[in-house]
Amino acid sequence: MTKASTAALMIVGNEILSGRTRDANLQFLGEQLNELGIRMMEARIVADIPEAIVEAVNTLRSRYDYVFSTGGIGPTHDDITAECIAKAFGLPFGPHAEAVAILDARYENPEDRTPARYRMANTPEGASLIYNPVSGAPGFQIENVFVMAGIPRVMQGMFDGIKSQLKGGKPLVSRTVRSDVPEGKVGGPLGELQAKHPDIDIGSYPFSRDGTPGSNIVVRAEDPAMADKVIAEVFDLLTSLGGKPIMQKSADESAA
Amino acid sequence: MTKASTAALMIVGNEILSGRTRDANLQFLGEQLNELGIRMMEARIVADIPEAIVEAVNTLRSRYDYVFSTGGIGPTHDDITAECIAKAFGLPFGPHAEAVAILDARYENPEDRTPARYRMANTPEGASLIYNPVSGAPGFQIENVFVMAGIPRVMQGMFDGIKSQLKGGKPLVSRTVRSDVPEGKVGGPLGELQAKHPDIDIGSYPFSRDGTPGSNIVVRAEDPAMADKVIAEVFDLLTSLGGKPIMQKSADESAA
Repeated sequence: MTKASTAALMIVGNEILSGRTRDANLQFLGEQLNELGIRMMEARIVADIPEAIVEAVNTLRSRYDYVFSTGGIGPTHDDITAECIAKAFGLPFGPHAEAVAILDARYENPEDRTPARYRMANTPEGASLIYNPVSGAPGFQIENVFVMAGIPRVMQGMFDGIKSQLKGGKPLVSRTVRSDVPEGKVGGPLGELQAKHPDIDIGSYPFSRDGTPGSNIVVRAEDPAMADKVIAEVFDLLTSLGGKPIMQKSADESAA
Repeated sequence: MTKASTAALMIVGNEILSGRTRDANLQFLGEQLNELGIRMMEARIVADIPEAIVEAVNTLRSRYDYVFSTGGIGPTHDDITAECIAKAFGLPFGPHAEAVAILDARYENPEDRTPARYRMANTPEGASLIYNPVSGAPGFQIENVFVMAGIPRVMQGMFDGIKSQLKGGKPLVSRTVRSDVPEGKVGGPLGELQAKHPDIDIGSYPFSRDGTPGSNIVVRAEDPAMADKVIAEVFDLLTSLGGKPIMQKSADESAA
């Protein structure tokens, strides 16, 4: 069994913290990484403050196999992620020849070649580019840190280009059973079931439908057969508590 | 001028990191806190791992005036936030008499009084309760840490009950102008405008409408008159660059 790799996400931007913009990149990356057998262990949303960015990236890159960063690599003064990454690595920061060539090709008209745009060609020395199929200006990779745009469509295009080089383990498969048994009733015996299967991740997510509480119980495991076995035990448990559990279709089943 | 207070949010839950659930609490709290003159400086999304929760809450509570925590206070085995907060503070963890009374009143039928449900009455010693107008089981406050539920409707009800006791400063007002001038064109002169007004926060957020790029420029300031002055300068700048800027309605204006 391959050990799963780990990852963290750093989301840069005052606009996320102020509530102006709702982040969409964590959910996308969490799902994508899981399919690759890489576990998202932590995410940090940091302000547009150099010290905060430097500290977050240095902490995260020492702890996890991969660090992904989104946001703050555009052409305006509040886009400071790239230079902060250089600072975090203690590397010189300047124009990346290939990035400059990409922008040159994109902006043929000399009046479009603004200094602001060419800020987007700066990387830490030795970085390799992450191509941007949507709007040209690339992200970059330096060691285990992948620096991408914040706009979801651009970030997704960038991630698409790098995911084949990420080394993961087995993906977790998940099985979900939904029932009208409230968490307060299933909680005790479900905890015993979790104790019986310490290597399997059993999660419980409550919901309320027309005022009636219920719960989705999710079993996650690397081994699909083990996931099937444990979710069957959950199903039986819910039935024994007087519930009417319904097995939900799993993503990896529907793909089969 | 009152100095703004600072805050951080800790979001607990594997389901957020795996992409299963998309967080909605950061955006809500970011907006609410700003109205109170409290700046959200950082947010961390941590896994259901005791050491990760303890470390995050201890770091954040030493750095910021307020720490809000969402998620992980339900009745199931994967709800470990409350006991981890007790561990972070080095406090005993056990039944809070008032919380027990709340659950007793809610669950009159003895068979509904499950041990799992009564886990939700445990708090660090000396905590005060945060009432839950939606589903009964309370959150709690210990020193500058406010521990709330993860379900948005429940969290919002809890926050409603505590916000009058938070001490903020002046809220930031914001002014937004939208235009068809791409960031790459406005970036340079906008940076000069920011340098001219170092105490004002000028942010730029690109968009693409039918393939045509544009940007929203947002000016945030404590003083509404100053915000008006700077956004007018932004408006003139965009016009001088050949754009057709449109002033957007601000939340605090529409409320006036």
